[in-house]
Amino acid sequence: MIPVETLRSEVDSRFDEYLQTLFRLLRQPSISAQGVGVDECAGLVVQTLESAGIDARILQTEGSPVAYGEVGPDDAKFTLLVYGHYDVQPPEPLDEWHSEPFEPTIRDGRIYARGVGDNKGQFLGSILAFKLLSELGAAPGIKLKFLIEGEEENGSRNLRSFVNAHRDLLKADAFFAADGPQHPSGRPVVFFGVRGMLAAEVKVRGANRDLHSGNWGGPIPNGAWKLVELLSTMRTPEGRAAIEGFYDGVEPPTDFERKLLEEIPFDEEGTKAHLGITGFDGPADMSYYEKIMFQPTFTIAGLNSGYTGEGKKSVIPSEAVVRLECRLVPGQQPDQVLEAIEQHVRMYVPDAEVRKLAGQPPSKTSPELPISQTAVAAMADAYGVNPVVMPLLGATAPNYIFTDDLGLPAIWTTYANYDEDNHAPNENMTLQAFRDGIVASSVLFQKIAAEYS
Amino acid sequence: MIPVETLRSEVDSRFDEYLQTLFRLLRQPSISAQGVGVDECAGLVVQTLESAGIDARILQTEGSPVAYGEVGPDDAKFTLLVYGHYDVQPPEPLDEWHSEPFEPTIRDGRIYARGVGDNKGQFLGSILAFKLLSELGAAPGIKLKFLIEGEEENGSRNLRSFVNAHRDLLKADAFFAADGPQHPSGRPVVFFGVRGMLAAEVKVRGANRDLHSGNWGGPIPNGAWKLVELLSTMRTPEGRAAIEGFYDGVEPPTDFERKLLEEIPFDEEGTKAHLGITGFDGPADMSYYEKIMFQPTFTIAGLNSGYTGEGKKSVIPSEAVVRLECRLVPGQQPDQVLEAIEQHVRMYVPDAEVRKLAGQPPSKTSPELPISQTAVAAMADAYGVNPVVMPLLGATAPNYIFTDDLGLPAIWTTYANYDEDNHAPNENMTLQAFRDGIVASSVLFQKIAAEYS
Repeated sequence: MIPVETLRSEVDSRFDEYLQTLFRLLRQPSISAQGVGVDECAGLVVQTLESAGIDARILQTEGSPVAYGEVGPDDAKFTLLVYGHYDVQPPEPLDEWHSEPFEPTIRDGRIYARGVGDNKGQFLGSILAFKLLSELGAAPGIKLKFLIEGEEENGSRNLRSFVNAHRDLLKADAFFAADGPQHPSGRPVVFFGVRGMLAAEVKVRGANRDLHSGNWGGPIPNGAWKLVELLSTMRTPEGRAAIEGFYDGVEPPTDFERKLLEEIPFDEEGTKAHLGITGFDGPADMSYYEKIMFQPTFTIAGLNSGYTGEGKKSVIPSEAVVRLECRLVPGQQPDQVLEAIEQHVRMYVPDAEVRKLAGQPPSKTSPELPISQTAVAAMADAYGVNPVVMPLLGATAPNYIFTDDLGLPAIWTTYANYDEDNHAPNENMTLQAFRDGIVASSVLFQKIAAEYS
Repeated sequence: MIPVETLRSEVDSRFDEYLQTLFRLLRQPSISAQGVGVDECAGLVVQTLESAGIDARILQTEGSPVAYGEVGPDDAKFTLLVYGHYDVQPPEPLDEWHSEPFEPTIRDGRIYARGVGDNKGQFLGSILAFKLLSELGAAPGIKLKFLIEGEEENGSRNLRSFVNAHRDLLKADAFFAADGPQHPSGRPVVFFGVRGMLAAEVKVRGANRDLHSGNWGGPIPNGAWKLVELLSTMRTPEGRAAIEGFYDGVEPPTDFERKLLEEIPFDEEGTKAHLGITGFDGPADMSYYEKIMFQPTFTIAGLNSGYTGEGKKSVIPSEAVVRLECRLVPGQQPDQVLEAIEQHVRMYVPDAEVRKLAGQPPSKTSPELPISQTAVAAMADAYGVNPVVMPLLGATAPNYIFTDDLGLPAIWTTYANYDEDNHAPNENMTLQAFRDGIVASSVLFQKIAAEYS
């Protein structure tokens, strides 16, 4: 294995070339939500893979094409499926950018461009890592498969069907991706899963029309009160769902995961001050991160009835609507939770309308697996500091496609600086973060090759 | 007293002239909300009063002018203050009118024009009644004061200050107005008061900003849930306010009023079917009309938090807002109820914002007063059928200006047909209703003169 110090200096000596490669990708707009430049960018990624010595091609989907690359011995004992996405968020609002979003510009040690952190500068780290190792005569003895999709910023709509249609091609031993920002302390993050999600709308009705609150007020049922009363039966004072079956199957953290939770830095007072709150919701005996990772949520994401705009409207509202959103934890499935909610609602308001808006299962890989441990150790080696290890993210992503459909352990890490401002104007990645990402993927590939080949 | 039959035939013989007078008023747009034609119409009303033999003049207010008229002996033992309004609702949407809104057109026994029922055709009934009685040599021996305002459709914004600035001028023994539609059965309505109103907004807050429901969901307080929990402490399962002090001072109906309530026709099954409801809110032992007239309401008129529009937004909402609206009954005052609500809210959510949006006291005249009885008897005589007598309307109007500020008993009746469609396209008044109104005011004036002079 090539020592980290050597890798660093070799990256430094090639850094101008790496920047040129990155800038070429950044200059190509690839806005999936607007259908702008997506095909062109997929083609560029294929070229980038090829010029790194990786066999590459375009694979079509129902939406944006996938840039697919493969390299390594056919008899390799280990295959790593490397995931990334070449599409970017729309750059708007344009007038808040200090330089053109699709003309990468270096200022104060940072590259400013739409998509530099999310995700072009991160997946490129893994491509360049392979190229570097090859040039140093140390191509890892594992097979690498690159799946760089073009719809992540638009909901990865075709990813599941694509993956399932290419199960043989994508056969692997583990899944790896670098996306998202590092911890504010500058430490990289390794995480092993995400919460799932169920979003549903519940609509209740009083009378069949809005009515004048003076002429009718008193005897006529009010949709808004009906909804408030229904909702008040659905939540405990402690902030949990008061719904039968809602928590069925929820898996508590393992002892190992509990230990990881304790090690995540948490600035309780700073968080409270930042958000202007005096306390936290949820069971008092549960830590902040246990609530974020191992507890399903029962969020009101929207509530609407009658009129709250300018002026005043004197109505008894007919309809009242709530958008409920549950982040799901390992052991739960969206439709099971939907059914529990529906049953509860029907018990109190038989004629309520319940409509599913979205659902995604959670996904978790055990942090105790050897490959999980290898990834954590690789990041520690590459950065010279222990990564922040998170069993799960609180947010939702379609990781289940890889963990549940393909059955792979999934390792995620983050190469972008904490303040990458992805999805915002002036998205950026520090030169250092881009450099470190190439080194980190190099260390990871070498370490996997050393331990599993 | 001239018999009703004679009055009828005398009205019939003059009816072409009466229609011409009405049409002249109807051809003059007088849209207070748009500032269209208001001064011109006030001038026309003054002319109309004068040509009926009533001394008349314009009185300025901060807004639309008042057309004021006065007639009758200076030593009259009884003065009746007759109220009406010459302003009209905007005619929009224009394309739904079958004839021009400001070109009165007779079709199928109805006069179609904006403002014919609300209120030009009704207050004109009283002016023409005086003219008729004079022509028949039977001018009533009471003093009549006409206050025809021009801002009723725009909230009567300057009425209170105008009335209080002219207390001497407006000195009277009773207040009388004809406005609104008759009962669906065709019977006229006499009512003696209105509910008051308090509208207030309550805003609560979770964190100081909306937060991503995945990244933060679990420990972070949710403004919408906070509001739901607050609201659920504010109402009993029976549909009453669960707020200390809310019902302080509420006066139950007197035995006499209770008897009136029982006599109001009520089609319970028809009402349920029309509104698509299976039952009524409020105390089970209270009749429909007792709830409408003698119970304050506690209505949610608007509820808003987070996002319920197209698509989906995954937030933990910071703010949640409710618009509360209380119709108040005799014995309550808006600020007393506001204080009770504020105290309750602060007990549960100390940092909630409570904002008053509007307030008007209720107003009630006893239906047992001799003048109230005289009015009911006059309507019965004029129409040959007992009027529907309502102690109060459920809605709100600034009657307190006359009953509380001026200390007058206030009698309201309705001359327009039930389906006058006021505030809507194709507003109309039947020829019969216009005719009957002139007769009814004639009977009323004669009866008051006979009984109180």
